Amino acid sequence: MRNLITDVPGLKVGNADDAKLASGVSVVVFDQPAAAGIATPGGAPALRDTALLAPEMTVERIDAIVLSGGSVHGLDAAGGAIAWLNEHGRGFAVGSARAPIVPGAALFDLDNGGDKNWGRPAPYGELAYAAAARADFDFALGTAGAGYGATICGLKGGLGSASALTSQGYVVGALAAVNSVGRATRGEAPYFWAAPYERDGEFGGLGEGGALPPAALELALKRANPGATTPAVVATDAPLDKAMATRLAVMASAGFALALRPAHAPLDGDVVFAASTARAGRAPDLVDLTEIGMLAADCLARAIARGVYEATALPFSGAKLSWRQRYGAAPAPPDA
Amino acid sequence: MRNLITDVPGLKVGNADDAKLASGVSVVVFDQPAAAGIATPGGAPALRDTALLAPEMTVERIDAIVLSGGSVHGLDAAGGAIAWLNEHGRGFAVGSARAPIVPGAALFDLDNGGDKNWGRPAPYGELAYAAAARADFDFALGTAGAGYGATICGLKGGLGSASALTSQGYVVGALAAVNSVGRATRGEAPYFWAAPYERDGEFGGLGEGGALPPAALELALKRANPGATTPAVVATDAPLDKAMATRLAVMASAGFALALRPAHAPLDGDVVFAASTARAGRAPDLVDLTEIGMLAADCLARAIARGVYEATALPFSGAKLSWRQRYGAAPAPPDA
Repeated sequence: MRNLITDVPGLKVGNADDAKLASGVSVVVFDQPAAAGIATPGGAPALRDTALLAPEMTVERIDAIVLSGGSVHGLDAAGGAIAWLNEHGRGFAVGSARAPIVPGAALFDLDNGGDKNWGRPAPYGELAYAAAARADFDFALGTAGAGYGATICGLKGGLGSASALTSQGYVVGALAAVNSVGRATRGEAPYFWAAPYERDGEFGGLGEGGALPPAALELALKRANPGATTPAVVATDAPLDKAMATRLAVMASAGFALALRPAHAPLDGDVVFAASTARAGRAPDLVDLTEIGMLAADCLARAIARGVYEATALPFSGAKLSWRQRYGAAPAPPDA
Repeated sequence: MRNLITDVPGLKVGNADDAKLASGVSVVVFDQPAAAGIATPGGAPALRDTALLAPEMTVERIDAIVLSGGSVHGLDAAGGAIAWLNEHGRGFAVGSARAPIVPGAALFDLDNGGDKNWGRPAPYGELAYAAAARADFDFALGTAGAGYGATICGLKGGLGSASALTSQGYVVGALAAVNSVGRATRGEAPYFWAAPYERDGEFGGLGEGGALPPAALELALKRANPGATTPAVVATDAPLDKAMATRLAVMASAGFALALRPAHAPLDGDVVFAASTARAGRAPDLVDLTEIGMLAADCLARAIARGVYEATALPFSGAKLSWRQRYGAAPAPPDA
């Protein structure tokens, strides 16, 4: 197990990013078309081709999911992934034509110090083409892919991932580009809200840090640059139809609440896609689906904390500190 | 402040319950019609007259909200509240007629040992009439009202409530009838998941209990009686329209994730109504709404923990223990 979403059999992830642009793209490419659903609890989503994910819509399966920087401009990104998939003979067949199905979500990183004077077209299509081409089992976390230019309240954000196994052997994984309007830590302390769900010190192993400082419960938002959105993907090898995938997305959305404060805010675009690669043989019953969804929420919370923990600061004057810059590469646990 | 949803100016709450039935009803009565929204993250909701809450539907304001035991039978309850409101000249005017607008949600407590052989009609309408008639600022928590017959995984559930004040002076409150398929505590330990948000020892003041036992993360569901659903209401005195109230409901739904594990399950009906009494003078901006929503999630999480903490066991053989029976009326904090 890599502790990445790619532990789920049947998918790969590719990143592409640009240091001068200070932005990037992450693409989840499914080996075979995958049933998928979505939950959009945030108030400021930027989405592309997601209406077809509703269970009553005709197209059953998707080929890839694109997470992108660039806000509304980043919604171009899926076009590049579509072009790559088209070249590889992928897509929904309509006569002799192919329509690769690629829903996408973008996050706001326009005001992070990078050079956004890109003229026409915006660079996100080419970034997504490159990301799809290099999709593999291993990919970078932190300041990488769709998390390259991401920020959160008080710290650099980034790309995170995590995986888990259910008691019945289903694999679950999550990927998140963490760019929330709020915090991932308990106020000014280094302890992540997601600490109860941490595995094997994947985001520092600091635990919950004892009694909560009361100030940790006060509202804290990135105000100078309130553009936000944490787009995410969860996946499982359990065979799900679109309705079950939608239920999985809703359950996974609890992960935002476990990792970020506030969650689902008006200026945030919390959004999570849920996809099934159907590689596991046995169809899940409702209890299996409950466990898959519970662990998907955990994985999403862990991926969010890891995205912040693994990030490095952007090299611009006034750029936000990374968690490691602020709290040290390996601060001692509170009990040490 | 009573630390109840009735701290929000402009509403009252009444309970009615029946020991032999082992079920009951809670009614939130608004002094004046209130704009409202809803979020339904659970997979097994039982709702009445909620379609009109969508922002694009015509009716702008509601007169009351009913939470009820009795599962599908409990959806009769709103009829009793409507009758009481009608007698008091309340309701949406249509010519000389009045249509009191009363959305409702029911929870599954049919298999809890109470006598459910009620013949025809089911008793929930009369219970709601009685509850509306006695609506006041003070009301009982625990084994009371809609939480009378409620159970959760391993323990008795119940009715909970909590309130908070934003930094700008808006009042926020929550009411929940806790009947989840999962746990409100960290596994077999007495510590509530909602502990980080607790105020003034309102559910025992035990804190988080130090390092999490790994078993606390395993799936645990009430299996013998998997019927579930935690219906809830949050309210504020901030003037909101239906769209803002819907955003408030979505933000408040994070409270299920902060207090229950798993949240939003297929066999659970996590549902939260959000209502605005508009008694505060100033309209909230997006930052105000974010803080109101964040505190609504906290209040919902706290109300859930309080509902379990305040409950007493039903007097039937095999009935689930209350939290106090299981863990003692006042166990010492872990640091004591």
